[in-house]
Amino acid sequence: MVDIATRVWNHKWKIDPIVRSLIDTDFYKLLMCQSVFRNKSDAQVTFSLINRTKDVRLAELIDEGELREQLDHIRSLSLSRGESTWLRGNTFYGKRQMFTSEFMEWFEALRLPPYHLEKRDGQYELTFEGSWPEVMLWEIPALAVLMELRGRAVLGEMRKFELQVLYARAMTKLWEKVDRLRDLDGLLIADFGTRRRHSFLWQDWCAQAMLEGLGNKFIGTSNCLIAKNRDVEAIGTNAHELPMVYSALADDDTSLAQAPYQVLEDWQKEHDGNLRIILPDTYGTQGFLDNAPDWLAGWTGIRIDSGDPATGAEIAIKWWLDRGEDPREKLVIFSDGLDVDKIAELHGQFFGRVRVSFGWGTLLTNDFRGLTPGDALAPFSLVCKAVAADGRPTVKLSDNPRKAMGPDDQIARYKQVFGVGEQVEEDVFV
Amino acid sequence: MVDIATRVWNHKWKIDPIVRSLIDTDFYKLLMCQSVFRNKSDAQVTFSLINRTKDVRLAELIDEGELREQLDHIRSLSLSRGESTWLRGNTFYGKRQMFTSEFMEWFEALRLPPYHLEKRDGQYELTFEGSWPEVMLWEIPALAVLMELRGRAVLGEMRKFELQVLYARAMTKLWEKVDRLRDLDGLLIADFGTRRRHSFLWQDWCAQAMLEGLGNKFIGTSNCLIAKNRDVEAIGTNAHELPMVYSALADDDTSLAQAPYQVLEDWQKEHDGNLRIILPDTYGTQGFLDNAPDWLAGWTGIRIDSGDPATGAEIAIKWWLDRGEDPREKLVIFSDGLDVDKIAELHGQFFGRVRVSFGWGTLLTNDFRGLTPGDALAPFSLVCKAVAADGRPTVKLSDNPRKAMGPDDQIARYKQVFGVGEQVEEDVFV
Repeated sequence: MVDIATRVWNHKWKIDPIVRSLIDTDFYKLLMCQSVFRNKSDAQVTFSLINRTKDVRLAELIDEGELREQLDHIRSLSLSRGESTWLRGNTFYGKRQMFTSEFMEWFEALRLPPYHLEKRDGQYELTFEGSWPEVMLWEIPALAVLMELRGRAVLGEMRKFELQVLYARAMTKLWEKVDRLRDLDGLLIADFGTRRRHSFLWQDWCAQAMLEGLGNKFIGTSNCLIAKNRDVEAIGTNAHELPMVYSALADDDTSLAQAPYQVLEDWQKEHDGNLRIILPDTYGTQGFLDNAPDWLAGWTGIRIDSGDPATGAEIAIKWWLDRGEDPREKLVIFSDGLDVDKIAELHGQFFGRVRVSFGWGTLLTNDFRGLTPGDALAPFSLVCKAVAADGRPTVKLSDNPRKAMGPDDQIARYKQVFGVGEQVEEDVFV
Repeated sequence: MVDIATRVWNHKWKIDPIVRSLIDTDFYKLLMCQSVFRNKSDAQVTFSLINRTKDVRLAELIDEGELREQLDHIRSLSLSRGESTWLRGNTFYGKRQMFTSEFMEWFEALRLPPYHLEKRDGQYELTFEGSWPEVMLWEIPALAVLMELRGRAVLGEMRKFELQVLYARAMTKLWEKVDRLRDLDGLLIADFGTRRRHSFLWQDWCAQAMLEGLGNKFIGTSNCLIAKNRDVEAIGTNAHELPMVYSALADDDTSLAQAPYQVLEDWQKEHDGNLRIILPDTYGTQGFLDNAPDWLAGWTGIRIDSGDPATGAEIAIKWWLDRGEDPREKLVIFSDGLDVDKIAELHGQFFGRVRVSFGWGTLLTNDFRGLTPGDALAPFSLVCKAVAADGRPTVKLSDNPRKAMGPDDQIARYKQVFGVGEQVEEDVFV
């Protein structure tokens, strides 16, 4: 029996929306948003799309009209009652009422602010300007839309069984990874793949496959909508945008040097336990830890998001030991460019020495490498970053100079202020 | 939107029927049935299930009650109006009204006769006794039921994503075969995989994948229901049961020696063109051709179904040349235990020398080898054969002694009558 009403309804949609919910975003965005809403709600910030993979010429692959329709659709979204209830009523990291009533009322009334879109040199220039807590919520949906529209451009050329076999191959590929991860005793791993996922439905499939295939080893997903729908934990802490914007807002070199610590001081007022995770690499991990105030060593853990991950973890372990902390009680979260080989290697090296967990991103939710002719569905390195705050450019150095961002003179100034010396270049894959 | 009525309806089924139509069978069964209905409708024949793969202990895997429910369901089936219309109105092998009104009226009134089922030594003894045109129609649905119930026994232990990945792997595996076949210029290939398919839905998927992936190289399917639903050609000619039963009915050695030719004489009265295909191996190909009447060399082609296929085809080519026929006008159909390597090899060897086509069976519709632990879904060698006619045992020698059937004394007698000498043993895989 065909449900005629369903069929007619499905054909009434003018577009097939990619992002259908304001909580189809990473959990840490909401945590950070609340912190920004409380501490820096007046800051005027600009977010900008940056495609680090120049040979994927997005403006030639994606129709501008379709892109605008998708972005306009996102601007029409508001928090549904059920989504609001989930955010208000859920326990996150063991804590009830993670989100304050004040923040929730603001979020319930929110519509995303306008975007600015232009084509240049085969790429899209897509920027979002406005108050920080509003524009910051564009990052994840904007990336998801671009990634999925690029995929649709390729999929649109494929026939029915070709498509089914494509997904069959992708499922097989993921399941072989799950089979390998299942063998790692004590593994804890989360889905961090929202921003560069192949598509929403595919991320949802991946998360469910991890849940069935890994059981308790799968600790949750960064995606709030999937966490809600599949009844798993929402996972995430904080990101580079906090120190980047705090630093850009600093009026002189002295306050710049303190800005990254100020971020964590503000964070500490709101969060404890597993949410007290240091992200140390924005302006160089070594210098950040050397100059850190003592209270920071008391935090629960660290997230390693650039540079050689084993080196980063060893630096953190040594730092904890120097400060009289027991590394076995500390959490190290690896989240940069992971795939199963690297996960197995890092798990083998650090499990037992520290508490280890993994935030697995692009190669969980978008490993379509090798599945289409010309590798037209391979993931690529697209980001959406805060590039300016109150008129001043932001800067990121990271532990990998290829991930550095900002004007050259400001990069030089930041390197001096944060005492960053020689750095090792690593390929930026995704 | 959930269609509530559909959901309730689906849950009302007491069983999930494996065979849901009397035309979910091989086309050649219907062609042969019509021939038998006209020429030998009084013959009393016994069909019996034979599992040549003894270590697949069917009676331990399959619940007897479930098996009976499936067989009882088949006995409740009758030809639907649409099925009858398709058989009456369709063009088969370029010919309208392939099936006579007399046959169609009989078929429309038909219900399959009773079965006899017992367990012995971990296997099922399943036999069908009755008038030949009725019991012969049990062969294909009985095999399909046993194969699919064995599969369900294994699938019943699997979880949701495991199942999806299982089918993803099977799809990927088949598509890689389709990719290879696409490269063979001039290939003509049909689905002959009904009897030992993994399941109906899987055969249906395979046929559709072949259609999309191979285009005109895919010439159709032996399965009438799939041919009807997917609007492709129904393919098939005749099988060993005709010479086996005709031979068993022969009263002495002289008429026995003539029986296989009598089959083809009767066949010739009804069919021409691509339906005049010799199946020469029932009692040894070489002897059959050496002793064949001259008119048989005028037939369109030959089907090679046992022994080394290249050897069989070379024997046929030499025979045609000896009888003054041009092999390039003759059709050679390979149908025994094929997979892509063998298909590519035979195609390379014979394309251009004769008209070549392939009937691809078990390794098209049931190649689940290597996809489950312990290979619990690998295909196995199950047949359902005419074992007696009017109280006399049937005999098959074939070009591979491992496929021989019948009582020892009768095998010896047949070997003598048909002048069969030394034969080469070949593994019977499926």
